[in-house]
Amino acid sequence: MTTAQVNHRFVRYRLGRDGIPKIGLVDNDELNVAEILGYADLYKVIEAHPNLAADYKFETGDVSPLKTVEILAPLPGRDVLCVGKNYVAHATEFHKSGFDSSDKKAQPDFPVIFTKRATSIIPTGKPIYTHPNVTSSPDYEGELGVIISKAGLNIPKENGWDYIWGAVIINDVTARERQRDHKQFYIGKSFDTFCPMGPYVVPSSSLSFAKLHLTTKVNGEVRQSQNTSELIFDIPTLVETVSMGISVQPGDIIATGTPFGVGMGMSPNVWLKDGDLVEISIPPLGTLSNPVTSTSPGVCSLSSQ
Amino acid sequence: MTTAQVNHRFVRYRLGRDGIPKIGLVDNDELNVAEILGYADLYKVIEAHPNLAADYKFETGDVSPLKTVEILAPLPGRDVLCVGKNYVAHATEFHKSGFDSSDKKAQPDFPVIFTKRATSIIPTGKPIYTHPNVTSSPDYEGELGVIISKAGLNIPKENGWDYIWGAVIINDVTARERQRDHKQFYIGKSFDTFCPMGPYVVPSSSLSFAKLHLTTKVNGEVRQSQNTSELIFDIPTLVETVSMGISVQPGDIIATGTPFGVGMGMSPNVWLKDGDLVEISIPPLGTLSNPVTSTSPGVCSLSSQ
Repeated sequence: MTTAQVNHRFVRYRLGRDGIPKIGLVDNDELNVAEILGYADLYKVIEAHPNLAADYKFETGDVSPLKTVEILAPLPGRDVLCVGKNYVAHATEFHKSGFDSSDKKAQPDFPVIFTKRATSIIPTGKPIYTHPNVTSSPDYEGELGVIISKAGLNIPKENGWDYIWGAVIINDVTARERQRDHKQFYIGKSFDTFCPMGPYVVPSSSLSFAKLHLTTKVNGEVRQSQNTSELIFDIPTLVETVSMGISVQPGDIIATGTPFGVGMGMSPNVWLKDGDLVEISIPPLGTLSNPVTSTSPGVCSLSSQ
Repeated sequence: MTTAQVNHRFVRYRLGRDGIPKIGLVDNDELNVAEILGYADLYKVIEAHPNLAADYKFETGDVSPLKTVEILAPLPGRDVLCVGKNYVAHATEFHKSGFDSSDKKAQPDFPVIFTKRATSIIPTGKPIYTHPNVTSSPDYEGELGVIISKAGLNIPKENGWDYIWGAVIINDVTARERQRDHKQFYIGKSFDTFCPMGPYVVPSSSLSFAKLHLTTKVNGEVRQSQNTSELIFDIPTLVETVSMGISVQPGDIIATGTPFGVGMGMSPNVWLKDGDLVEISIPPLGTLSNPVTSTSPGVCSLSSQ
């Protein structure tokens, strides 16, 4: 697969299980990754280059075939901000499903903001665990995640785009009856492995946000397909909301909401099950591909991300 | 003021503005702090001693008068787990207030779990900022916070106490109309300075959880006074809930909910205002004392905690 020409397409990766995590640039054919020298993680890249120019040249080192490296989650270790009910057709399918105990209305008057625990983050390729002992309704949500560029507080939406460093794909996996029963979404959204993230981070200087199209496939069948700019609350409005009284930090991620087509909206409901494969694509952010398993990975820790 | 005899009463502190943060033990008269050698932060103490014995002797160094040091937030840097509507009389006052848009019922069927952003954490002594530009209803919530001792997943409540390392006072400051309007509580709970924490952390081996009594005073007037064991969902049940599908980590904090007596429950409502002083005491955890200001501290960062 060839993708659009992109000046910077970042990946966090390591060479083998015991390797030190590195930051690299993936070439346009997605064949090779060139190590970027001088940065311990992607947070450091963002902090050093809050307004990364499209023609900036990083100093690079070893080049490795992409197929031979292990791709890691690009921005782990911090709870992920998420937006609920932010596409019209999805807000309607959620409202009709019987799983939305949080509101009387389908479309919200104010952005619905919640978090997923940092321990739920996994990279592309790792299995989503269905947690059969505590939920019977695991469901996918393909989403565009946007990344904050610099610290800010009370950012008016007029300045919102200045604070968007780039983008990444998020799968906001959800245990539907837990989301419903606990009213607040945190529990149903935060199960271990329920936040696949990646594979790539692409900076704003290489993106046309108005043209990004999200496709979610389950076992090859298209379930979600929508332009990610068709939001009820647009990206600058979300920046305004999440920075209202709250200092955002470089590297914070806002998952902007999922479009129509989740398993909860199907009749009868179709939940994720052992052996499924969930693939979410937003060119040029790559394809976030995760198998589904009913085999527990055991206790997760922040340090293993 | 003398407090109960306690074997270990931890404090995070520094000597002067530019000092390196240290971990110390406060004596029973709260006159002096003795530096503990060999630990960079309190997370490291917890990880090294998940089952801290009451008679364990730490190696200590310099002793400083407590009045001369700057007390820091004991466990900063991680979003704080919180429980909503977990005392009967408070659940009723919240439900009657018109600010609870999250549920049709006063008392929840399942624990209500949400998070406060790590950037909202401040130590005792620092001002709570009222954010007059984005809320007109800042309110206090005195709470017992419990601290997770070791990593765990799907912990049955029968084993819940094994995972409680100790306790700390939390003020779950809330912007009420933001909590109401956004349905999900994250925004209204996460404003900068809205999570005062401390001053001390006391391990379970020095506590009788059934006997802890919380008192909240505003400008010297008692507003909240209740035994912190009178919870709708008790501490072992909360451990079961927050570890349901989610791997908890050593040092995670669960703020267990606030008792009756918040400003939202008064008629007319009484909100925090410039010049107020909020003091929350739970002997032997000390007194969490924070003035209230309408002067902005500017953009907050994680690294300044």
